[in-house]
Amino acid sequence: MATPVTPPRGMRDFLPADKAAREHALGIIRQSFASHGFDEIETPVMEDSARLHSGLGGDNEKLGFAVLKRGLSAADVASAADTDNVLALADLGLRFDLTVPLARFYASHRAELPTVFRAIQIAPVWRAERPQKGRFRQFVQCDIDIIGESGPLAEIELITATSATLDALGLAGCSIRINDRRILTGLLAHWGVTADAGERALITLDKLDKIGVAGVVAELEALGIIGAGVTPDAATETLTALGAGGWTLGTDAAGEAPAWLDAAAFADLEALRAALPGVDLVFDPTLVRGMGYYTGTIFEIAHPDLGYSLGGGGRYDGMIGRFLGTDVPACGFSIGFERIVDLLGADAASADRAVVLVHEKDADPARLVALKTALVETGLRVRLEKRTKNLKALLERAGAAGYGRFAMVGDDTVDVGALEFKALGS
Amino acid sequence: MATPVTPPRGMRDFLPADKAAREHALGIIRQSFASHGFDEIETPVMEDSARLHSGLGGDNEKLGFAVLKRGLSAADVASAADTDNVLALADLGLRFDLTVPLARFYASHRAELPTVFRAIQIAPVWRAERPQKGRFRQFVQCDIDIIGESGPLAEIELITATSATLDALGLAGCSIRINDRRILTGLLAHWGVTADAGERALITLDKLDKIGVAGVVAELEALGIIGAGVTPDAATETLTALGAGGWTLGTDAAGEAPAWLDAAAFADLEALRAALPGVDLVFDPTLVRGMGYYTGTIFEIAHPDLGYSLGGGGRYDGMIGRFLGTDVPACGFSIGFERIVDLLGADAASADRAVVLVHEKDADPARLVALKTALVETGLRVRLEKRTKNLKALLERAGAAGYGRFAMVGDDTVDVGALEFKALGS
Repeated sequence: MATPVTPPRGMRDFLPADKAAREHALGIIRQSFASHGFDEIETPVMEDSARLHSGLGGDNEKLGFAVLKRGLSAADVASAADTDNVLALADLGLRFDLTVPLARFYASHRAELPTVFRAIQIAPVWRAERPQKGRFRQFVQCDIDIIGESGPLAEIELITATSATLDALGLAGCSIRINDRRILTGLLAHWGVTADAGERALITLDKLDKIGVAGVVAELEALGIIGAGVTPDAATETLTALGAGGWTLGTDAAGEAPAWLDAAAFADLEALRAALPGVDLVFDPTLVRGMGYYTGTIFEIAHPDLGYSLGGGGRYDGMIGRFLGTDVPACGFSIGFERIVDLLGADAASADRAVVLVHEKDADPARLVALKTALVETGLRVRLEKRTKNLKALLERAGAAGYGRFAMVGDDTVDVGALEFKALGS
Repeated sequence: MATPVTPPRGMRDFLPADKAAREHALGIIRQSFASHGFDEIETPVMEDSARLHSGLGGDNEKLGFAVLKRGLSAADVASAADTDNVLALADLGLRFDLTVPLARFYASHRAELPTVFRAIQIAPVWRAERPQKGRFRQFVQCDIDIIGESGPLAEIELITATSATLDALGLAGCSIRINDRRILTGLLAHWGVTADAGERALITLDKLDKIGVAGVVAELEALGIIGAGVTPDAATETLTALGAGGWTLGTDAAGEAPAWLDAAAFADLEALRAALPGVDLVFDPTLVRGMGYYTGTIFEIAHPDLGYSLGGGGRYDGMIGRFLGTDVPACGFSIGFERIVDLLGADAASADRAVVLVHEKDADPARLVALKTALVETGLRVRLEKRTKNLKALLERAGAAGYGRFAMVGDDTVDVGALEFKALGS
């Protein structure tokens, strides 16, 4: 059976050291979110195909893994071929995000949940993306969402909990970039962009940090968006002001707000800033975020040393109620677990509490396990290792696996007091 | 969109109280196994179809969920219909157990793992079983396995760690029933049962506690198994002795071991008993366990109040090496997480540290979050709740969600010292 023994394409095995780092980070995240009054829920990894393809998932819907119906006959398969409907062969699919399952969960359990429901979801999702560096076909998402709160308390609690969690993880120096979709749509309306073209224009605006003001203006012109209600010069001026960003945008030199700025939305952002004195909240009017379902505030985690975001979220009032047939306010924040866990070091504190007992090959198993159990009962983590010719290699491997100290078990050691512990390598 | 909003058939949502109970139990299990020197690993939920259907999974292979290939054309589908090969449409499948993935993982990473590898796997598996009470299509398995240790140290460490974990979970009074496949195959050989008929005979023996000695003898006769090397009377006598079980089976009144008893295997079990003084180890020669891959010791967790097992395992030396093409000794123990979590009560200790702050609808969000954050920083878990007309119902719901105390936030409360906490209901 000399078949390849790798995991499926784009998916990963986690060896002990990686798995320990992941569980350590997950424990901190889980505990931090819970202490801020969020309640963890869990849904099955699969949902009905029809629900996954109901339009809430945007482009991710196309990346879903579909699960074959059980007990299909050749005739069923032939029928799917005849009607060119491959997806008729699947009744279930693996979730591609945690938002569609949350909407389904909320519709199913609303009566059992508090009026304002603060949800934690920490779970894997699957996307059949072309594998590339840092992109995987199975990865963990960590989402918190507040459902049923239309006021700014939702944003304040989400940002507070996320900021505290980043601190707890030891990720110092993060700031939260914030914007409001109403400011972006207000700008586009001011320019005379039609609602139809708005989503396309936002995709271009989102590139401001990559292609610059001139690039954005050129692309908007090419799309026929600039020219209707705004001249290229005026657009350049406004975009330059946008790119400079900052809280001073609310008033120009004459103490006036620019005409394109949605004053109510900007005032709401200023109120958030006042309510979050412990958070480095940066107003960034060029922040777009890709998903079309956002309706109000949007935010992203920025780290001074990183060129990418560590997470983000926003208000999406129209969506959760889709399966209920009624509008329900909702706001969520997702931290990028896979990126964050890569930034964290090993849990040094736990290494000191993890010890290796090295024993001769023929040592009495009962005596070894009695020694081990006595150490475990003192709160240590204990691994037994048979002595090998290359003791150094053995110890190095244990060090890499998170063990910090070792002791040799003598032929007559029966008491843990007789064990002499030494540090494991450097 | 008035479609049903339930999870897929046979799968479950977990509401906050259930999810908290599950995570609490998982935390205890994870910590206990780790302290005994086991290392947690993780594999993707999907494996290649060919690997899942390589014969290691027994009957469970038939219950696997298959994942449709991406980008299939109608022609691909028609071809699968023509060849009546529905499974050709799938390249991946969801794992139905954690043992096949462990074998694949070990083959893939052997060079990076210690010579004796002690693995923890705590993860969901999927089986398309007919849903029934207590059986689910997605459920969590908790397995520990020791790979690369042929001696009894493996059994001793597995049983010690499992027993300590049951204690840590508060499941007092559990015993471990133990047997050795060699004793069962020795008995069948003594009766002249051919190797071909052996597996079928074990299925009958496994029913001893349900259909009794007479039922087993009748079934073995009907199968043509009794009659070859044993009379019904002799079989009845031996099975009666087996049913009585116990460590005294090793010697009869004259101080002799019964002729059918594999003396070496029995001596090994007695040595395990001596090495596990803190464990209630019960020799049960009628214990069979279903999977055909067991080669030596087999064991099961029995609880005095329960008619079902809380987990089990055994030695399966032939299997892990299948993907390597070489024999590797292995032994594993799986605890029945879904059954165990049903037996555990709520985590009372955490309720006292979880408080609800009840506030008026129009309270200043910034002030509320400042109060909440100050309490979180003292180590409390804090949920904000808008006051509703029915305060009693609100508090009951918070109590059910695991909160133990509450305080009313006054119009002018700005300091947590001013909050008066009361217990939440009974």
